[in-house]
Amino acid sequence: MPLRTSWAQDNCPIARAADVFGDPWSVLVLREVFMGNRRFDSIKKALAVADNILSERLRRLVDAGVLVALPYSAGARPRKEYHLTASGRDALPVLHAMLGWAQKHTESPSGRVLRVICGGCGAETRPGPTCASCGNELTVGTTLWEHPRTPGRRIGLADPEFLDSSPH
Amino acid sequence: MPLRTSWAQDNCPIARAADVFGDPWSVLVLREVFMGNRRFDSIKKALAVADNILSERLRRLVDAGVLVALPYSAGARPRKEYHLTASGRDALPVLHAMLGWAQKHTESPSGRVLRVICGGCGAETRPGPTCASCGNELTVGTTLWEHPRTPGRRIGLADPEFLDSSPH
Repeated sequence: MPLRTSWAQDNCPIARAADVFGDPWSVLVLREVFMGNRRFDSIKKALAVADNILSERLRRLVDAGVLVALPYSAGARPRKEYHLTASGRDALPVLHAMLGWAQKHTESPSGRVLRVICGGCGAETRPGPTCASCGNELTVGTTLWEHPRTPGRRIGLADPEFLDSSPH
Repeated sequence: MPLRTSWAQDNCPIARAADVFGDPWSVLVLREVFMGNRRFDSIKKALAVADNILSERLRRLVDAGVLVALPYSAGARPRKEYHLTASGRDALPVLHAMLGWAQKHTESPSGRVLRVICGGCGAETRPGPTCASCGNELTVGTTLWEHPRTPGRRIGLADPEFLDSSPH
């Protein structure tokens, strides 16, 4: 018996999207994977989240086709690393829209912002589908974030394991 | 004691946004209010949601400053009607980003889509911050939706009670 209502088969696309992104932990897990934090233990540490909650969200995101779990070897036993699929990479505008809203309408306790930098022209831009300076599309392959957690450090969102055109 | 973790005071703007939009019922309530469905009973009917869930989500959205409750008279007792604040109106790009993702990456069981129409030029456009045809910003004042629930009917997202420039 499902513990939550599912909108995966809803006729409304906003409802189908809310089924995936309408959960704060899922959004935060995606943020971590976008920033290159792909392993259970390191995501758990970054989010200070309980094991069962994180496992369940990773499972949901894999089931929704947004993340893919790939094995890697660490010590004695194989483990899994989470990567964005093409569908997951296309979730960047969802996170950027949330980011744009929050930076306009909520206050940062630390005063720090999340800066979005266009890898095409190098300019800082407002979060959105395209760069406000050069007009290029802001994709994982062309976008860097300077996150409030690591001021001064620009993190490229591209996944070195995959080309942007990867069928994953 | 709070029943859910709050990210309202998080240093990360994506987390602060997830605190508001990271809930499927909240996203669906916002969708209804954007479409002009502003009263408890009619939202409840549209979403087939339990009273306590709807009350709690409306309260959260009002607390977050996204909705404002205004009294109206209906029969014997005063009731409340929910309107988007300026902050709520600025959530349109969040819903549009979700919409764009879902129409690309999920299937509509009915085959119907949610069409976004620019009120400026009248063209159907991809959901986003601006119209793909004329470049105008897509705001509640300039956007119409044709929702899968009511095919052939274009719903203007403007709130006749408020000008777009309303300080609410």
